[in-house]
Amino acid sequence: MTASVAPAEVLTALDATLDADLATLFEFIRIPSVSADSRRGADMRRGAEFVAARLREAGLSDVEVHDTERHPLVTAAWRGAPGAPTVLVYGHYDVQPPEPLERWTSPPYEPTVRDGRVYARGASDDKSPMFIPITVVAAYLRAIGRLPVNVVFLYEGEEEIGSPSLAPFVKREAERLRADLVLSADGGMWRADHPTTMISTRGLTALEFTLRGAAKDLHSGRHGGGVANPLHAMARLVAGLHGDDGRVAVPGFYDDVRPIPDALREATRALPFDDAAYLAEIGAPATFGEVGFSTLERQWNRPTLELNGMWGGYTGEGSKTVLPSEAHAKVTCRLVADQDPDDVRDKVVRHLHATLPPGVTLEVRSERPGAAAYRLRDDHPGLLTAVASLRTVYGVDPWVIGMGGSVPICETFQRYLGMDTVFFSFAVGDEDIHAPNEFFRLARFAEGRSAWADYLARLPRVMAGG
Amino acid sequence: MTASVAPAEVLTALDATLDADLATLFEFIRIPSVSADSRRGADMRRGAEFVAARLREAGLSDVEVHDTERHPLVTAAWRGAPGAPTVLVYGHYDVQPPEPLERWTSPPYEPTVRDGRVYARGASDDKSPMFIPITVVAAYLRAIGRLPVNVVFLYEGEEEIGSPSLAPFVKREAERLRADLVLSADGGMWRADHPTTMISTRGLTALEFTLRGAAKDLHSGRHGGGVANPLHAMARLVAGLHGDDGRVAVPGFYDDVRPIPDALREATRALPFDDAAYLAEIGAPATFGEVGFSTLERQWNRPTLELNGMWGGYTGEGSKTVLPSEAHAKVTCRLVADQDPDDVRDKVVRHLHATLPPGVTLEVRSERPGAAAYRLRDDHPGLLTAVASLRTVYGVDPWVIGMGGSVPICETFQRYLGMDTVFFSFAVGDEDIHAPNEFFRLARFAEGRSAWADYLARLPRVMAGG
Repeated sequence: MTASVAPAEVLTALDATLDADLATLFEFIRIPSVSADSRRGADMRRGAEFVAARLREAGLSDVEVHDTERHPLVTAAWRGAPGAPTVLVYGHYDVQPPEPLERWTSPPYEPTVRDGRVYARGASDDKSPMFIPITVVAAYLRAIGRLPVNVVFLYEGEEEIGSPSLAPFVKREAERLRADLVLSADGGMWRADHPTTMISTRGLTALEFTLRGAAKDLHSGRHGGGVANPLHAMARLVAGLHGDDGRVAVPGFYDDVRPIPDALREATRALPFDDAAYLAEIGAPATFGEVGFSTLERQWNRPTLELNGMWGGYTGEGSKTVLPSEAHAKVTCRLVADQDPDDVRDKVVRHLHATLPPGVTLEVRSERPGAAAYRLRDDHPGLLTAVASLRTVYGVDPWVIGMGGSVPICETFQRYLGMDTVFFSFAVGDEDIHAPNEFFRLARFAEGRSAWADYLARLPRVMAGG
Repeated sequence: MTASVAPAEVLTALDATLDADLATLFEFIRIPSVSADSRRGADMRRGAEFVAARLREAGLSDVEVHDTERHPLVTAAWRGAPGAPTVLVYGHYDVQPPEPLERWTSPPYEPTVRDGRVYARGASDDKSPMFIPITVVAAYLRAIGRLPVNVVFLYEGEEEIGSPSLAPFVKREAERLRADLVLSADGGMWRADHPTTMISTRGLTALEFTLRGAAKDLHSGRHGGGVANPLHAMARLVAGLHGDDGRVAVPGFYDDVRPIPDALREATRALPFDDAAYLAEIGAPATFGEVGFSTLERQWNRPTLELNGMWGGYTGEGSKTVLPSEAHAKVTCRLVADQDPDDVRDKVVRHLHATLPPGVTLEVRSERPGAAAYRLRDDHPGLLTAVASLRTVYGVDPWVIGMGGSVPICETFQRYLGMDTVFFSFAVGDEDIHAPNEFFRLARFAEGRSAWADYLARLPRVMAGG
């Protein structure tokens, strides 16, 4: 076990404020900052102002709330360590919609502690992880009046809707955001029982489509059998998106997919992962996916096409003998290098048109921008620092893993600022983010603070080759 | 044109009360008697009591509201014409759910007159048609103190949910309901521009099923590609219910289907029906269905399997990258002679199990009882009377047609009372029943009253061979 390089005064200050900081975190979680819900505009504003107020209290300067076409961005900086490296801290204060509400054990916006976990929408993704570095910077400035590195904070409110305003902002404000690397408080560890750090994420492209038959809902007795039912057409169309072998059947979908390097396949196989234990954890009857790959490879290193929603006709209680006029579906594809998000989306749209069943029309919408996959190089100093800081807190060597999800900001920071992103989140992948009963393990709040305190002190040494 | 055989005093009385009776009908329509919605129990009770009060005002005796396990039945009688035939008048006061609410131009329970039509849920199915005979009996008893036939009224509140209480009630109360034939105010004419009477209906069997993957919704990035997505499985399963030729692919589905008699095929072909005009009416791009049959044959004389609803995952605004735990579907099959509803449902369930995609489990529910198809014989005196009464009112020979929908009560009355059912409704098939903006043509209210007045006076003559 490595000793922490964080100043003792800082660690003491963090201990002293733990309860008060948790109370503040719970206040933050109570704000229903759902970026996808257009009725939550005022709550999104409250979320941004809350974050800005905490950054000001922490002692940062230049705290600003920036309006965008959708939801505000918050920035802050402390540049009092000339010659030291600069870290851009990234996170997001927006959360996923809470539906289905009836599946929550406690109300989604009321942080409720059970068994050492706090249950609430956003507890894990991303409010607890992104609040940690604010409290660590506050402890440094309060305890010793300075930070070992320069820091810039960039917290957005559109991560759950594809970050449409982030790239334009980053491009425009490159000078304000100048740093050596991005340290992302969003991301999440693979396991609760072993620290991990993540070197790759999958990209994303999303679309929604509608099939229309008749101009209005019809009586299924009177009209059934004579005109196309958009629900049947939807089933045929969706069924044609995959082959029996679990592969995506869209022509050209795999054209730009790089093979998984042998070393990565071997490292992944060496990880302690067991299909049976995984299925027990998620309560599923079987694994299922593309032939020729393990479950982890399917989730981290292979692209997918998944329906996130599909609906049409009568969905209420009892029966209603309707032949509906419309059917709808929402689709996301997870991408790997070197797939281009727009190219993949175009291929999917072409396939939908090419395989459209008779008697219906197709309309495709694409509301969120795509994101390419991302991979960090193995010897990046920010990654080496993360590995060392995790060893300090957890006493073991962390595993370096891939990630199935998407963090589109990696590509944005690379493209407009030339900066790599290191993931340093203390959420865990089993915390039901994007689902009912999302939770965050309270112990990770203190662990995360210790790790961030160590990271900020250790980074200058690693970058100096120490 | 045949002259009406109804007494002139009765026709005068009907003219005099037209406006007042329409106002009462609108009051009736304002009661949101949705039988499928368990929150509408009190409104269903109000609907039944409203019907009972109007029957009492009409001068009928033995008016009773009968409790059932779900919604009340209303009965009434007038048996003051010994030796004359007895007619059992059937209808229903329950209505379909109004969803989707946002598609209504005026509120569903506020009868709104536009262009000679009253728009409201239940206006066509079945409140206006079933209210007509009450007003006709009232006019007879007020104007001349008697009816030409004996009448029994049987109005139920469960037609839209499969009439679960009707058969037990009919069986138990056979003596109370004793009559020569059933005259159904439910049904509906084929066209607005030509009178029709209907000699066949399709049967019905319904089921609902759920596919389950993981025990909870998962993040589609983290887990996507590794476990089955119930929406994909649903699409494959539903796509496998039909062949490319539009035929139902369930093994044995057509085993008991009687071929369409040549005479019926010819009569149907002789009807003035044009696919292009039909498509323009419903706003659909093309006809679609079982190969080898015309649109009308598909809708009247061939069985179908239709999805009435299909849903799962996120269906709200924006995107939510969820891999849902469940997918749902509601299915109804329309049946023709000699298909047995339970047998067909069993075959569908077996097929669902046999073709279940990997990685999900299947649960099937069947909440409403099935109904067999029905056919009235061509020379039935009740049918001949209907033809003559329609000729009286409309001045042309009505077409005798089939019906794609189901009126399960036909089989119930046949089985337990040995009685045939004659359809005598003044709704029209284009009135968007079971859909937003349901309407009823106001002129048909007066026409229907004239026709019912004629029918009650004419039936004894036809039955006497006159």
